[in-house]
Amino acid sequence: MRVSKPQGSPERNASLLTLYQSVRDATARLGAPLSDADATVQSMPDASPAKWHLAHTTWFFETMVLEQNLPGYRVFDRAFNFLFNSYYESIGARQPRPRRGMLTRPSLETVHAYRDHVDRAMASLMQDDLPPAVADLIELGCNHEQQHQELMLTDILHLFAQNPLRPAYKDPGPIAVAKTDSSPPRYRRFDGGVVEVGHDGQGFAFDCEGPRHRALVEPYELADRLVTNAEWMAFMADGGYRTPLLWLSAGWATAQSEGWTAPLYWEERDGAYWSMTLRGAQPVDPAAPVCHVSYFEADAFATWAGRRLPSEFEWEHAAEGEPSHGNFVDSGRLRPAPAQAGQPGLRQIYGDVWEWTRSAFAPYPRFHAEEGAVGEYNGKFMCGQFVLRGGSCATPANHMRATYRNFFPPDARWQFSGLRLAGDA
Amino acid sequence: MRVSKPQGSPERNASLLTLYQSVRDATARLGAPLSDADATVQSMPDASPAKWHLAHTTWFFETMVLEQNLPGYRVFDRAFNFLFNSYYESIGARQPRPRRGMLTRPSLETVHAYRDHVDRAMASLMQDDLPPAVADLIELGCNHEQQHQELMLTDILHLFAQNPLRPAYKDPGPIAVAKTDSSPPRYRRFDGGVVEVGHDGQGFAFDCEGPRHRALVEPYELADRLVTNAEWMAFMADGGYRTPLLWLSAGWATAQSEGWTAPLYWEERDGAYWSMTLRGAQPVDPAAPVCHVSYFEADAFATWAGRRLPSEFEWEHAAEGEPSHGNFVDSGRLRPAPAQAGQPGLRQIYGDVWEWTRSAFAPYPRFHAEEGAVGEYNGKFMCGQFVLRGGSCATPANHMRATYRNFFPPDARWQFSGLRLAGDA
Amino acid sequence: MRVSKPQGSPERNASLLTLYQSVRDATARLGAPLSDADATVQSMPDASPAKWHLAHTTWFFETMVLEQNLPGYRVFDRAFNFLFNSYYESIGARQPRPRRGMLTRPSLETVHAYRDHVDRAMASLMQDDLPPAVADLIELGCNHEQQHQELMLTDILHLFAQNPLRPAYKDPGPIAVAKTDSSPPRYRRFDGGVVEVGHDGQGFAFDCEGPRHRALVEPYELADRLVTNAEWMAFMADGGYRTPLLWLSAGWATAQSEGWTAPLYWEERDGAYWSMTLRGAQPVDPAAPVCHVSYFEADAFATWAGRRLPSEFEWEHAAEGEPSHGNFVDSGRLRPAPAQAGQPGLRQIYGDVWEWTRSAFAPYPRFHAEEGAVGEYNGKFMCGQFVLRGGSCATPANHMRATYRNFFPPDARWQFSGLRLAGDA
Amino acid sequence: MRVSKPQGSPERNASLLTLYQSVRDATARLGAPLSDADATVQSMPDASPAKWHLAHTTWFFETMVLEQNLPGYRVFDRAFNFLFNSYYESIGARQPRPRRGMLTRPSLETVHAYRDHVDRAMASLMQDDLPPAVADLIELGCNHEQQHQELMLTDILHLFAQNPLRPAYKDPGPIAVAKTDSSPPRYRRFDGGVVEVGHDGQGFAFDCEGPRHRALVEPYELADRLVTNAEWMAFMADGGYRTPLLWLSAGWATAQSEGWTAPLYWEERDGAYWSMTLRGAQPVDPAAPVCHVSYFEADAFATWAGRRLPSEFEWEHAAEGEPSHGNFVDSGRLRPAPAQAGQPGLRQIYGDVWEWTRSAFAPYPRFHAEEGAVGEYNGKFMCGQFVLRGGSCATPANHMRATYRNFFPPDARWQFSGLRLAGDA
Repeated sequence: MRVSKPQGSPERNASLLTLYQSVRDATARLGAPLSDADATVQSMPDASPAKWHLAHTTWFFETMVLEQNLPGYRVFDRAFNFLFNSYYESIGARQPRPRRGMLTRPSLETVHAYRDHVDRAMASLMQDDLPPAVADLIELGCNHEQQHQELMLTDILHLFAQNPLRPAYKDPGPIAVAKTDSSPPRYRRFDGGVVEVGHDGQGFAFDCEGPRHRALVEPYELADRLVTNAEWMAFMADGGYRTPLLWLSAGWATAQSEGWTAPLYWEERDGAYWSMTLRGAQPVDPAAPVCHVSYFEADAFATWAGRRLPSEFEWEHAAEGEPSHGNFVDSGRLRPAPAQAGQPGLRQIYGDVWEWTRSAFAPYPRFHAEEGAVGEYNGKFMCGQFVLRGGSCATPANHMRATYRNFFPPDARWQFSGLRLAGDA
Repeated sequence: MRVSKPQGSPERNASLLTLYQSVRDATARLGAPLSDADATVQSMPDASPAKWHLAHTTWFFETMVLEQNLPGYRVFDRAFNFLFNSYYESIGARQPRPRRGMLTRPSLETVHAYRDHVDRAMASLMQDDLPPAVADLIELGCNHEQQHQELMLTDILHLFAQNPLRPAYKDPGPIAVAKTDSSPPRYRRFDGGVVEVGHDGQGFAFDCEGPRHRALVEPYELADRLVTNAEWMAFMADGGYRTPLLWLSAGWATAQSEGWTAPLYWEERDGAYWSMTLRGAQPVDPAAPVCHVSYFEADAFATWAGRRLPSEFEWEHAAEGEPSHGNFVDSGRLRPAPAQAGQPGLRQIYGDVWEWTRSAFAPYPRFHAEEGAVGEYNGKFMCGQFVLRGGSCATPANHMRATYRNFFPPDARWQFSGLRLAGDA
Repeated sequence: MRVSKPQGSPERNASLLTLYQSVRDATARLGAPLSDADATVQSMPDASPAKWHLAHTTWFFETMVLEQNLPGYRVFDRAFNFLFNSYYESIGARQPRPRRGMLTRPSLETVHAYRDHVDRAMASLMQDDLPPAVADLIELGCNHEQQHQELMLTDILHLFAQNPLRPAYKDPGPIAVAKTDSSPPRYRRFDGGVVEVGHDGQGFAFDCEGPRHRALVEPYELADRLVTNAEWMAFMADGGYRTPLLWLSAGWATAQSEGWTAPLYWEERDGAYWSMTLRGAQPVDPAAPVCHVSYFEADAFATWAGRRLPSEFEWEHAAEGEPSHGNFVDSGRLRPAPAQAGQPGLRQIYGDVWEWTRSAFAPYPRFHAEEGAVGEYNGKFMCGQFVLRGGSCATPANHMRATYRNFFPPDARWQFSGLRLAGDA
Repeated sequence: MRVSKPQGSPERNASLLTLYQSVRDATARLGAPLSDADATVQSMPDASPAKWHLAHTTWFFETMVLEQNLPGYRVFDRAFNFLFNSYYESIGARQPRPRRGMLTRPSLETVHAYRDHVDRAMASLMQDDLPPAVADLIELGCNHEQQHQELMLTDILHLFAQNPLRPAYKDPGPIAVAKTDSSPPRYRRFDGGVVEVGHDGQGFAFDCEGPRHRALVEPYELADRLVTNAEWMAFMADGGYRTPLLWLSAGWATAQSEGWTAPLYWEERDGAYWSMTLRGAQPVDPAAPVCHVSYFEADAFATWAGRRLPSEFEWEHAAEGEPSHGNFVDSGRLRPAPAQAGQPGLRQIYGDVWEWTRSAFAPYPRFHAEEGAVGEYNGKFMCGQFVLRGGSCATPANHMRATYRNFFPPDARWQFSGLRLAGDA
């Protein structure tokens, strides 16, 4: 990974501790509305139980940081290394991913005790000056945990959507809600050229965001807002889900075999569309960005609209300079971002929905996975996935930036994923 | 079903109430060691969450008895009819069986409140004289719940066996333990002839146990005790799991595709066999009856031993007259049955492990499923399953009798199932 | 197996040779209309290519008879033992059943040369006096080949039904056509009692037909003719395929997942039903017996009709004494059996469609599989299958008898299978 | 698609006719060694029967060219449109791809008659001046058929590899053999920069090869020859197939579930490796390029070797200027290309094995699928596949060029696919 400048200074230690504590607190708050059962069940192989997220992020600090760097550290429970390793082949055998939901024990209470145990040890470790490599690992662990914060929400939503009772994760109160914007979309033109993309090493970034490098971008244009539910309903009304020529071949096959006729979580009730949300089932808001669509659907929509999805470099080039802030604030309360009224530039860049790009997730020039376990972080997933840019209403605010590369397979729908249209200029 | 004589008498009402309350109490005690998470997760499509068992047995009384017979009864929650119907097509749509584990809500606490709500209503209903048909349904509901008591234990054991921590359901204390018996097996001879089998209508029985009828049984012999773990290990050591000629064709195919090399839940640790049990992982006791074997395995073992499995009528004819009592006593505490010291007859008939017979589960002559929902109780499963007789250490004591017909598919292993050898005389 | 009296006499030799040659000739005639491609493709795992049938039946004689009993016999091709062994574990490894259709080589021509090679050797062997055990094996081989004659036709029909061109195996000319009978069904009453069933050892029988033994049969009645297409259409019109309460649970699940709405091979064209047959697509004849229905469907139909399927012993007891003759004559030309005009007894017993019984395929009392390869003939399939009795229009005439036990799984539809109704008397 | 300059001139007509006839003849010659059965069976869903290739390429001309452009053209058989449409949604329903092997009819002979029928009509059509759009379609059809020529060989090889007899498609005689080269690999350095890639419209190209456009390529180096079997065996000996850290996550999962331990078609016999080829099983030649490896394996090998796969633009930039000629000559006889002795540049660029690149198959800037059926040619497959460059020993010689983009999913192994290593300079 590329991380913030190694300094080993007391200032960095202090800000790391603040970051650590705020991230850990935010995770705990996200888990608060969940019962032991809610936190244990796995609704599909791609999703993980909330309890597993809570424990796995903790295991990361224990295994990557504490065991090697805090003398006398006592491992909380040796068995947890098997239970809560995600996919690190270099660290050993682990509970198979599709069987994570079998772990009714340890209980949610024990997992919280595990978190406390590790938090105390981390606080102790961070009292002293840290070698830069250790500080880097802690910063990585915090950003890793922020990724899991969003996954916790997406996975809980998927779980609750399987329940005919359609329970609310948290209600009332605005949570994970994208901004509405029903103004006609306008297209902004960009000249492109040989531009620089990728992270420059100032501040934290994941390894796959670098090295910063040159890319050739032809002139293009980009919509100033996201595609809305109203526009999606027009696509549906025009037979979008029944017209194979709009679709990629694999997309059409998936849509047919899965019976897709609308975004995930939508259901028709008495002629109106409702969608399952973290506040339970809600009427679909025409002015809100469409969400929970796959790459396949996004691509078909763009074809139908006579447009295309942007490449990840087009997106990044356009987004540089846009203010980065999301809905998911540090104070711990979840609230929507303030409306970006009167802004002349691109709207809904951060904090609404992740935006599918047409770019396959691939290594940047001269990218090399690091040695050891952290080298497994991103590189080995560079196959069969597409890049999403921006950040959703469930993404922590300080976790979004122009160079961030999220990625999912083209049939994934349970993330907060939508789209913005592009075209050749 | 065939049930106890319809009398409508106050005596019957009183004894029904006693039965109802003791059964409901026993179920609650069985659920007591479980956390909300334990009670919610479904470990495989054939198993159900404990919470589902707790609610479904309650739903049976609410739907079959209270709604039609208690004026003014208020349904606890309309949605529960969808959630907790098992397979009654005549009662309506329901949560698909493989998705029962998605129901993190209602919580275990709410399910207990549901049970209390129905118990109060049932007590109120049973204050008055009951028409015989209603009394019959209540008696059926109690026996139905006793079936689910055993299933709760088998399903919890399966769930906990998926957990690398191998948690104990209840420990210490003897629970669901079969009697040991390492004496050399002796064979008792029976003359057979045209004998009467099936339930005679005195006391409760399930519909599939009748009508009582004549059956022709040729002379046969039956081992006086169950096959032991020591004998099973001899079968394994002799290549039993690697010799296709011992197996039914479908059994061999299953054993190969599933990788069977020992009974379910066995694992080798440093050269010794351990087995997952309700008390956690325990060393395999050579003198105990082998348990958690499928029909396929039981049949292969019998072929290897130069014997065969008994037919269900051979078993029933031999078992008539044997005292019926199990490990699972009414007082609510679980304890093993007293040793049947000095008994000259068949041993381990009741309360150790269910015994596979060679008989396919089929209707008796002149059997007719009843009209309505209760007609779906057993008849529609009379295909592709084999009969087991006796009763296991997890079966309620007053739920075992010579005519009882349990049934499972030939590849099922997660029940407390073993075998007793037979032969032609 | 139980076979005709061992005599070792010249007379037996002569009649065996006649049988052998007539059976082999009949097989060759059945293969004559097929191209190399027709004879090679496998349409589903349960079906086999015609070429495989032609070779496997030949392999049986080569492996079971010639290799051990004809001094100096030269094996045609060593590789064929792997290619054309069906399921004999004791004889060694073999081409996996679902991959039989990969064998484009050897060609059909080579397989015919294989047949000729073995036929010459068999003729040579049969010139001399044969030990009874060898004669028994040859007789078994002839009957085995007759079983495959019918399977060749069922498998070719299934293959051709997958082809949108709906090609005819043979047309014009009556082939494999059941007798029509639209008279109102009448029920014949039988007293039952302790009756003798099973083969008595006079003449050939397969091992599973014996030992002859006593069985207790309660009074019953049996329809004098088969269920017709017209009656089946009434079942369909009455919602038979949409009413779960008529079905076994496993049957309903199968019908739903497979989308059954009519017998196999039926399709609707302009409001009328057509069925794929060996003569290509033909209009469904209302007076003909319904065919290509599974046990699940047959059972649901019987429930709908307020009747039940007969047990195999009820069927056998009733059929004893009925004349046995089918459509499939020795002379080599295929023609329907003569109408049984004026017969007062049961009609359509032999040579129309196989009749599902309610009996699971299970061993008779004191049945023991023989030692060696022939012991694998039937015994290992005694699980998960139901017995069919009688014989179809595709069954060789001299291959049908009252004790014959055909068997298939309850979801099998591609055989010539129908039903006759029964009831309690 | 981008095609050769539209001219409508007599010269173009004449050369088109020559091309058409030579391509059609070559296809017929490729089919000559196959029996009706060989040409009918489908060995897996991704492969097609040879008969289907023969008919589908013909259907292309009939449907895309003749029906609309030859007045009075009589369609050979209306049913063939259903049978032999591959994936053109705009043209209508079709035989499902995994069921192409069910078509034992029409026979191979009829398919040849179909070819003759269309060839005569095409000759008639090409007598007259053709509108450029029609000439373009014919040229596309010829190139389309050449693609299927290679697929016929790969699919036949896969089919024959399923046969335990390991039959030879054609033997003796050199067919589809890559050049050997065991010299130590040397790396050539390229400066890159903003280069032009993609087809320039001179001569035929498929639509996905254009538009020609600029691309930014950083300095890189490329091995002057392909990876050999000897090198692959070193990878295997070093535990390449047992070391997860070398693999992409999806690659490792595939390798485990499929049990990969060597390239497809390799088997060990007495300690030596043999490989199934079009000449039957042959010893693996250490000096020959490794073949029948997936992208997953190629990528793991490159990681093991401390290198990487080239991008498609790196490959194209380096290959421009290399002479293009393959093994597969127009004269109709198959022979290996002449050894490129003494060549100072890159070797084995064309006509040995297809070379996996690290580039996901994606549209070039400003690519737009055409209107109508031909628009379905490539665009809808731009998801989940990787680009291969060069051409194999089974590729027609005049079908290879520097801009050609072949593509397959990352787990595909049955093509003639290998790799060349690259690195950053």
